[in-house]
Amino acid sequence: MGKYDAFLGLLMDVVKNSEASKQNDGTVPVGISNRHVHLSEADLTALFGEGYQLTKIKDLSQPGQYACKETLTVCGPKGAIEKVRILGPVRNRSQVEILKGDCFKLGITAPAKLSGDLCGTPGITLVGSKGSIFIAEGLIVAQRHIHMTSEDAISFGVINGQAVSIQIDGPRGGIYKNIIIRANNASSLECHIDMEEANAMDLVPTSKVTIIR
Amino acid sequence: MGKYDAFLGLLMDVVKNSEASKQNDGTVPVGISNRHVHLSEADLTALFGEGYQLTKIKDLSQPGQYACKETLTVCGPKGAIEKVRILGPVRNRSQVEILKGDCFKLGITAPAKLSGDLCGTPGITLVGSKGSIFIAEGLIVAQRHIHMTSEDAISFGVINGQAVSIQIDGPRGGIYKNIIIRANNASSLECHIDMEEANAMDLVPTSKVTIIR
Repeated sequence: MGKYDAFLGLLMDVVKNSEASKQNDGTVPVGISNRHVHLSEADLTALFGEGYQLTKIKDLSQPGQYACKETLTVCGPKGAIEKVRILGPVRNRSQVEILKGDCFKLGITAPAKLSGDLCGTPGITLVGSKGSIFIAEGLIVAQRHIHMTSEDAISFGVINGQAVSIQIDGPRGGIYKNIIIRANNASSLECHIDMEEANAMDLVPTSKVTIIR
Repeated sequence: MGKYDAFLGLLMDVVKNSEASKQNDGTVPVGISNRHVHLSEADLTALFGEGYQLTKIKDLSQPGQYACKETLTVCGPKGAIEKVRILGPVRNRSQVEILKGDCFKLGITAPAKLSGDLCGTPGITLVGSKGSIFIAEGLIVAQRHIHMTSEDAISFGVINGQAVSIQIDGPRGGIYKNIIIRANNASSLECHIDMEEANAMDLVPTSKVTIIR
């Protein structure tokens, strides 16, 4: 690669970062999650039958992710929660993301963990239309996090895996600490919190929060 | 009153304040409220029958306040919430304190207000064992607040009505802003938050929070 190509590459990076900066007013839109389930192919089959395909009803903001028509029942030793939405597409491992308040109802304490970090998390029973399974681990309360592209990360001055705080304005405002940055180019800029976290600070789907350190 | 009496009075104040300071390690225990109802005498009669008396099952931490055996159903235009606990004793006016998440279920937006500040708040239907009523106003989400004695207030360096922030430690910690100090000598030191606020920050009944400004 000649000097000119190297210079052009550098110039393109500068232009891209400058575009990211232009879009970055310091705020991040919120995505509010209710309890939901991700299923592996094998668990989908066990719960809904051989060859069953999930039915997309709505695209989510993260690229390729969608809400499905299908729901299931999540059962713990103390109680059950019905109509828990399945999100597609299928994943390598099943994962059940509940609210802290659901732990009391189910009778299980789920730890706050990032999606995919399931080692040592509690198991749980799932009941579908054609069967039920007990997954040995996979029950979590989703740890608050911010999805963004690598360019967004440069623009915000943060790196993948970093813990930041977010400031929420308004009469019921405040600060949530320990929000993990998840920066990769399969992401779209959004701060993911659950319904209890949203309700406690009066956040709604059109709200924005500000990253602070 | 002679000089000696005046001096003694002053000394007693100093001793009292010094005792309050000794007890004050800068933290405040939390009291976590689920949705609940306070009833006027007239509304209690309309819902449970003539001459009905509430049945205390448990004293609450605030002096003279208690949870009752009785529950009722709260009905909005979109849905109903059953088994909402009544707190005693009866008050001058009925008041229904719900969670933000309950607003979606009921189909009514309740404002965050301090207990007793009911002017302009939405009405709601209550259903008891012997009748139902529509109260013209009184539906609120309780604004977070801290009960304390006047001596506690001196010890913390705050005054009645002041808005402070509270800091919550732990992996799901953060800061809640705009917590109102309610200082009077019928109070016991406690930061009142609701279940969604508690769950969002992993607070439990034995948790303590720190007042910051």
